[in-house]
Amino acid sequence: MASEAGAGVDADAYRIRPLELGDLSKGFCDLLAQLSPSAPLTEDSFCSRFAELAALGADHLVLVAEDAGTGRIAAAGAVLVERKFIRRCGTVGHVEDVVVDAAARGRGLGERVVRRLVEHARARGCYKVILNCTPELRGFYAKCGFVEKNVQMGLYF
Amino acid sequence: MASEAGAGVDADAYRIRPLELGDLSKGFCDLLAQLSPSAPLTEDSFCSRFAELAALGADHLVLVAEDAGTGRIAAAGAVLVERKFIRRCGTVGHVEDVVVDAAARGRGLGERVVRRLVEHARARGCYKVILNCTPELRGFYAKCGFVEKNVQMGLYF
Repeated sequence: MASEAGAGVDADAYRIRPLELGDLSKGFCDLLAQLSPSAPLTEDSFCSRFAELAALGADHLVLVAEDAGTGRIAAAGAVLVERKFIRRCGTVGHVEDVVVDAAARGRGLGERVVRRLVEHARARGCYKVILNCTPELRGFYAKCGFVEKNVQMGLYF
Repeated sequence: MASEAGAGVDADAYRIRPLELGDLSKGFCDLLAQLSPSAPLTEDSFCSRFAELAALGADHLVLVAEDAGTGRIAAAGAVLVERKFIRRCGTVGHVEDVVVDAAARGRGLGERVVRRLVEHARARGCYKVILNCTPELRGFYAKCGFVEKNVQMGLYF
């Protein structure tokens, strides 16, 4: 099997594809807990949210990387397309909730997911893709083609 | 007429309300050009985008401040509600495209618009509201209740 150029990972070891309902039983929520710990989702909650996002069509894409060997979800990420009035009714992609399973890090999998999310935004006609990250992740996103720009502010309820 | 506490602006001089189709002729697009200069929108483009956003219901709110005296739009801002799987299917408000007409600045109008956008996100059940801004605007958003958090990265097509 061919190696993915520069990524140091067997390109066929993982299949990157849109989230499916069956991914609940493939460890999708356990993976997300590595990003933000919280109580497990019920199947009902997962299915409801899945349906809400599906109704947004290509304006909200969740990608997962399935380990071809184990069938488990090893990475995930999302992109939300925002429709604006500025920039002649331009659209912007917001990359959110990128996570790679602790046991699968260091193989270029996160970069592959991010690049696929960026490609989706580009294909939807976005003029830019933005994301927020901790300062430690600047290097990772720079490798994915991003440049630092502005500051993020947050208000927590 | 009563003054809005702390804002130094006559609370009745501006009416803050959701964007309406008629706002195209009240200077909405001229105002947005102060945020990001671009060629004027056609009425068709404006109406199409308006309809697309209306279809998102309360998940995408554009607020404007109409000058009660002149009938012109003096400020605007938007909030987009993102539906996540993390945080037990939590939702996050993204504040975007806040702008105050150059002639109406320094009267607390921007803060009033931002606070109304934040209230909308809170009422929709968001666990936080986030936004990106240039470093010079940190003080303004701190006054609106935001704290600095992380960095914004961007990829421009």
